[in-house]
Amino acid sequence: MPKHNKLIVLTNPKLTEVAEVIEKALAQRKTLIVSGMCKVLYSGRAKSTLEPGERILIIKEDGSLLVHRPVGYEPVNWQPSGSVFHVHTKANTIEVHAVRQKPRENVRVIFSQVLMISALSLDDAGEFSLHASERDMHMAILRKPSLLEDGFTPISYEKKVEPGFVDVYGVDKSGKLVVVEVKRKTAGREAVLQLSKYINAIKSKADRELRGVLVAPSIRKDVQRLLETLGLEFKSLDPKKCAKVLKKDQNAKLETYFKEDN
Amino acid sequence: MPKHNKLIVLTNPKLTEVAEVIEKALAQRKTLIVSGMCKVLYSGRAKSTLEPGERILIIKEDGSLLVHRPVGYEPVNWQPSGSVFHVHTKANTIEVHAVRQKPRENVRVIFSQVLMISALSLDDAGEFSLHASERDMHMAILRKPSLLEDGFTPISYEKKVEPGFVDVYGVDKSGKLVVVEVKRKTAGREAVLQLSKYINAIKSKADRELRGVLVAPSIRKDVQRLLETLGLEFKSLDPKKCAKVLKKDQNAKLETYFKEDN
Repeated sequence: MPKHNKLIVLTNPKLTEVAEVIEKALAQRKTLIVSGMCKVLYSGRAKSTLEPGERILIIKEDGSLLVHRPVGYEPVNWQPSGSVFHVHTKANTIEVHAVRQKPRENVRVIFSQVLMISALSLDDAGEFSLHASERDMHMAILRKPSLLEDGFTPISYEKKVEPGFVDVYGVDKSGKLVVVEVKRKTAGREAVLQLSKYINAIKSKADRELRGVLVAPSIRKDVQRLLETLGLEFKSLDPKKCAKVLKKDQNAKLETYFKEDN
Repeated sequence: MPKHNKLIVLTNPKLTEVAEVIEKALAQRKTLIVSGMCKVLYSGRAKSTLEPGERILIIKEDGSLLVHRPVGYEPVNWQPSGSVFHVHTKANTIEVHAVRQKPRENVRVIFSQVLMISALSLDDAGEFSLHASERDMHMAILRKPSLLEDGFTPISYEKKVEPGFVDVYGVDKSGKLVVVEVKRKTAGREAVLQLSKYINAIKSKADRELRGVLVAPSIRKDVQRLLETLGLEFKSLDPKKCAKVLKKDQNAKLETYFKEDN
């Protein structure tokens, strides 16, 4: 086996071969994928036992560990990065023991048979970026109204108000009506005038005090005074933050799993 | 390629071979592992882009999907079970498109090069069980005192009180002292008498009302009356529930990730 192969794959290997690949991969900080029949024991803040079955073990170059069953998107066992590994070869098994120091936690994956083992040198510098559309920003405010301000209660969104549609419409903590106009980029003159038109259209029919809030990641300096003159307000909101709120919501089930079932 | 291989592995395959393996694996509900250079696009409640890099794609037999980078124990993208897949072969890429219907979410993994692809028929019926020791149960009550009762505030644990050590010691919402004795199995006569001894030892020194609570998954019927005669209480608590509380705590970082960063 060359010292720094980009890729090593063995199918139906002997356990002695498995041990060799695992030890080299750990030493060289490669990513390891091992699939086969294993039992998994966890001890730390609690204890768990996973009886034998065929699963996928992944050990990443940073020492994080995942054990995946053939169904479900959640790992059944895992360790965060920084785990220290010990490999024990016994008569008919190989034990991969991952130790986390603080808090002290142990995951032991004991293979009795390996279908496939792969050690990979993965090169991954690609940037991850999260975006939100204007409509995503509306949705985020509806889901988490405190993004606008504490005590805000949305009543409707995309409400038809000639000359168009109000993005988000609600009531503040003191009972005033709030008309919200959302932009996903720096707000300019047009956004301010648009909000002002909605306010004027609603003012005639509203029975209580009315506030207009322009929501955007930033506002152009030269229109800040126009905004104030028209009696409107500006609230800075990052679309990325909205994207996170929506993703959080999406992950409700995943979070519940991690809280309740593992 | 035989129709129902237990294991298919190709290294440095052509993209046409990759497409063939993926399509067969999806049709036969096998578990797929694909490692190679890919870009990942997500759209749904928000949008994200992961620029090209070498990663591991896992598609499980239930249609769940995970994309793992070579570091970190969290997937960078995922879909829950029940996703529907489309494979698009283009000139120099293969796109695996996972669609979740409700809410509508799309993950597109676009490979430009594949290092290794494996399709596996994994057989996993092993039971997963979570355990907690008596000490784990103490810890769980300290971390989440409402496991005992609402308004309970622990003061100390394993407190020395002749003739031994009180498991958990605290104050209830009305200010009464509470002595807690924990058993991880059905509580019998001995547990009741042990708690009674602690209560008697403390009573002489305590300046306020004292309650004794025996905590266990269940209590033997024939000692229920003894418990009441001695003025003690019983609170049913499942060690498994305690294990979950402790694991939840362990997963704080993981939860935070899923809430905030993806």
